[in-house]
Amino acid sequence: MNLTEQLDHIFYPRSVAVVGASANPEKMGFMCVGNLLDAGFGGKVYPVNPGISELFGLKVYPSLAAIPGEVDLAMVVIPAELALSAIEECVAKEVRGAILVSGGFGEVGTGTGAELQTRLKAIADKGGMKIIGPNTLGFVNPRARLNASFQYTLSLSQPGNVAVVAQSGGTTIYITHALTNHNVGISKAIGLGNRCNLDFDELVSYFGQDKDTRVIVLYMEGLDEPERLIDAAGRVTKIKPIVVYKGGRGEELSRATFAHTGALAGDYAFYEKAFRGAGMLVVDSITEVVDTAKALSLQPAAEGNRVAILSVQAGPGIIMADKCREQGLALAEFSAATKSKLKMLASPLNAVDNPVDIAWKSDDFNACRKMLEAVLDDDGVDAIIVAAVFYASNMELMRAVVDIAGEAKKPITVCLDSPRGAAYAEINTLEAGGVPVFPLPERAVSGMAGLVKYGEIIK
Amino acid sequence: MNLTEQLDHIFYPRSVAVVGASANPEKMGFMCVGNLLDAGFGGKVYPVNPGISELFGLKVYPSLAAIPGEVDLAMVVIPAELALSAIEECVAKEVRGAILVSGGFGEVGTGTGAELQTRLKAIADKGGMKIIGPNTLGFVNPRARLNASFQYTLSLSQPGNVAVVAQSGGTTIYITHALTNHNVGISKAIGLGNRCNLDFDELVSYFGQDKDTRVIVLYMEGLDEPERLIDAAGRVTKIKPIVVYKGGRGEELSRATFAHTGALAGDYAFYEKAFRGAGMLVVDSITEVVDTAKALSLQPAAEGNRVAILSVQAGPGIIMADKCREQGLALAEFSAATKSKLKMLASPLNAVDNPVDIAWKSDDFNACRKMLEAVLDDDGVDAIIVAAVFYASNMELMRAVVDIAGEAKKPITVCLDSPRGAAYAEINTLEAGGVPVFPLPERAVSGMAGLVKYGEIIK
Repeated sequence: MNLTEQLDHIFYPRSVAVVGASANPEKMGFMCVGNLLDAGFGGKVYPVNPGISELFGLKVYPSLAAIPGEVDLAMVVIPAELALSAIEECVAKEVRGAILVSGGFGEVGTGTGAELQTRLKAIADKGGMKIIGPNTLGFVNPRARLNASFQYTLSLSQPGNVAVVAQSGGTTIYITHALTNHNVGISKAIGLGNRCNLDFDELVSYFGQDKDTRVIVLYMEGLDEPERLIDAAGRVTKIKPIVVYKGGRGEELSRATFAHTGALAGDYAFYEKAFRGAGMLVVDSITEVVDTAKALSLQPAAEGNRVAILSVQAGPGIIMADKCREQGLALAEFSAATKSKLKMLASPLNAVDNPVDIAWKSDDFNACRKMLEAVLDDDGVDAIIVAAVFYASNMELMRAVVDIAGEAKKPITVCLDSPRGAAYAEINTLEAGGVPVFPLPERAVSGMAGLVKYGEIIK
Repeated sequence: MNLTEQLDHIFYPRSVAVVGASANPEKMGFMCVGNLLDAGFGGKVYPVNPGISELFGLKVYPSLAAIPGEVDLAMVVIPAELALSAIEECVAKEVRGAILVSGGFGEVGTGTGAELQTRLKAIADKGGMKIIGPNTLGFVNPRARLNASFQYTLSLSQPGNVAVVAQSGGTTIYITHALTNHNVGISKAIGLGNRCNLDFDELVSYFGQDKDTRVIVLYMEGLDEPERLIDAAGRVTKIKPIVVYKGGRGEELSRATFAHTGALAGDYAFYEKAFRGAGMLVVDSITEVVDTAKALSLQPAAEGNRVAILSVQAGPGIIMADKCREQGLALAEFSAATKSKLKMLASPLNAVDNPVDIAWKSDDFNACRKMLEAVLDDDGVDAIIVAAVFYASNMELMRAVVDIAGEAKKPITVCLDSPRGAAYAEINTLEAGGVPVFPLPERAVSGMAGLVKYGEIIK
């Protein structure tokens, strides 16, 4: 069985066993079983604990061996010193993969932990089994309604095309929640933990061919063999964008990152250069992760960096122009033909330079659509950003954006704010039509910068 | 009457006239009257239009002169060429101040517009009247339930202690909505427009002594006499923080900013240096405006830059440490006494270095409170950032934060994410207790950076 098949079994299991299932609501063994059930997983769930007989109305098995059917995925939630024999039992039961939630391995930095992890890896490798972890959150696959983690809020994630792979469970949660809060769906979100025998490069290769994934997001603190990821990424970035955020940058933080997942953070400049060389999109905050992934999840890459800005309000247009320049995007120069079309369509009060001022026309669907068309047709324009504050009449402009987006060959991002959620319906309509919406001018530019940079990478 | 009294009449009017009130829902004269009524303004509203007799059940007056009582504030929503005589009528009626919504003045860049604005200023100055505008949104004063603007969503703002003054109406809206979405209340939010005889320096001086305002936020594109603002800000920043965001930075944008509000953008480096010299907090995005203003609206300035980070999740702790270094904040070195207290209180699994790892103890109110107390008591610590993903058991930590925040002499910011709004109640409790909550690790640091920088300014 190749790695793809093996990971398919892990991410789309027919059955999940929880070794260390518990009736105590404060224990992770309770939360893991509860989350599997609450998220609505359709496969079989087998709690395992020799001390109890029933949990959430499910039969509890005294051991993995006692489970009658096949087990595709095991979640192991017992202390480190007992986890090794549990993994041995997984191998004996021919379990395809395991999530080892327990800590106490490589990350503790003492001889015992490191030694346990070495033995763990030997057992798994010999048995042909892949382990997510140890010292991990687990993962979520919303399309399979599978929350194989101890964090119940991950069940709020929606199915989508962004894969998240993070070294840290906490960061997996922050990124996944932030994507969820920005209407971005998830293909899979995984906390990798100590990466005893399943590492970033393998998941990058897997998601590179995963039909449900269009964008890959990585968060990492350190890598033992960076060249493995660089190699895999170099192949995958030709077909799918990889957005990478590297944490743990100061020398003084090496201690903290080691204690966290047993990896040394290493020199940031080295990583940044290598990542860029492999065609990865290097970002510097979770906000930028979200904006970049959101734009790439919905829109095509740009063929150049010349951006047209159409804004109902002049001030936000000016802010976006500032931010374009900071991000290496150019303000497109319109052709004479485009300018004369715009002049005809716009109000006499409107400036038809770039940024194009479309106040007074934002309530006119036809005029807006024709202005968008004129700009899209201009050979000097590679991408368009449209902005408006939320106001009923501006929504005609937004209708025109959705209408034209389906046939547009150039990427479009939108800035539309939503005070107290007032614009949720309009945002959903835009995004259902494939147009990513950002709440602030600077973020619509940040999203567009991702599309332009990815365009440069694949060219 | 001095400027303060005059602006008090404008911001807390007993009566508002709308010159150019309209029965056509697409007209600003309709929206302005509607917003005054919808927001629940308690004073008198006088629509003025010689062509209609009733609007929203209110009597419509044929002229300002025909209004029986006094008028504190007039909103003028008629074409530029008619606006001058309307302002003359305001002077005759002894109106205290006007919002001149209409465009077609200095911003059009032709002789007529500029000349109209010169005449407008002469009329207002001679009549002792202040004009907000022309070419403006108006303002909102949530404490008075007064939405004196054409943007109905500004009525969603909550009363609070942040004053927003922006050259651009659109930017006023984006900033005010973003503050509203982050639970930050507004004292007043004003779109200044062309600033014919009411400018940034006058509003900075006014808000410097306004008891309802604790933080002043400015957005501008260009100033005619920057030294006036620099002087006023130099006095005010000693007692209240001023957060300033300057847009329109490229040479190619001078054209756009001029067309917008009739001001040249000028050289950004010049502005930045002058603003910093006056003790203003210079920021570079609306997100940073929100984070800085939010922290300053609730927490005291820090007395130094040494930050302690307590995080339930290690990864976000590492991200925050990275961001602290980028922002010029130092990771505090704990004293031996603090370390031994933390070691006693923490789980044996926890790292008690900075960032302090408080996983396993975040469900223990007493342990959390004592750990926070130990860190607050350390003379080597100036400020504390606490972080957790939303999880029921982590809320004991948050209870401890609220409990200690009332007596803490050092600033505290919190990072607590809220997937799909799940943590709203907990966030509200923290903020009611004076602790600002940020949704992402980088933003809790950004807020803290504002508190540290303002501490350096007032020292």
